[in-house]
Amino acid sequence: MLGRLNHVAIAVPDIEAAARHYRDVLGARTSPVEDQPEHGVQTVFIELPNTKIELLGVLGDASPIRSFLDKNPSGGIHHVCYEVEDILAARDRLRQQGARVLGDGEPRIGAHGKPVLFLHPKDFQGTLIELEQA
Amino acid sequence: MLGRLNHVAIAVPDIEAAARHYRDVLGARTSPVEDQPEHGVQTVFIELPNTKIELLGVLGDASPIRSFLDKNPSGGIHHVCYEVEDILAARDRLRQQGARVLGDGEPRIGAHGKPVLFLHPKDFQGTLIELEQA
Repeated sequence: MLGRLNHVAIAVPDIEAAARHYRDVLGARTSPVEDQPEHGVQTVFIELPNTKIELLGVLGDASPIRSFLDKNPSGGIHHVCYEVEDILAARDRLRQQGARVLGDGEPRIGAHGKPVLFLHPKDFQGTLIELEQA
Repeated sequence: MLGRLNHVAIAVPDIEAAARHYRDVLGARTSPVEDQPEHGVQTVFIELPNTKIELLGVLGDASPIRSFLDKNPSGGIHHVCYEVEDILAARDRLRQQGARVLGDGEPRIGAHGKPVLFLHPKDFQGTLIELEQA
């Protein structure tokens, strides 16, 4: 079921500073900072030869990464995103196996314009998993 | 400087159970559990089309993931590993930029038989970064 690793998301307290740091210290290629108001985050993408890193910054009071940053003020690895061929089939299979899908279970359109779902970290060894339709 | 994402490492409290869970619930292909006594961990690799996930279990009293699991008893994403072409050149560049390399700064042979270094998470937005010679 699991396809490519689409991205690793890293929550950061200051996205401009983090992007500069990845560029200057790690020699990474970074996209401009983009506001994603419908997701409550700012994003910067770091393109690697085989996948990408998504830096996430807080946008707005209801940002979904705010509580993570409250617990991890320096930032940290927030989630991994796997591609699946058929997100509804993946959701149904996961539910049959007893895994919890966050929210109402209906895929939302993610930061890349594709349907996504998040799985409960308690059902996956403390790892927040995003699934994205390939 | 950053090359491919070699792997994402996930620390887990029970590696046999975690591997079974990834196979049965996520349909992942998993390698057998392997003891890595020189690293104080057990490993399971999950091959994805573009990279891999490394499940890490505790091996022995001095396991480097024990304190992480004490803080995160369910497990969690432990580190990301990037490939670099020349690990000594990468280390020297990082140090010039003020980043701290863990240990004595000399590369050790990692779980894949290649020289690796770890960078201090405080210098990278709370993210533990492993560098591996490509």
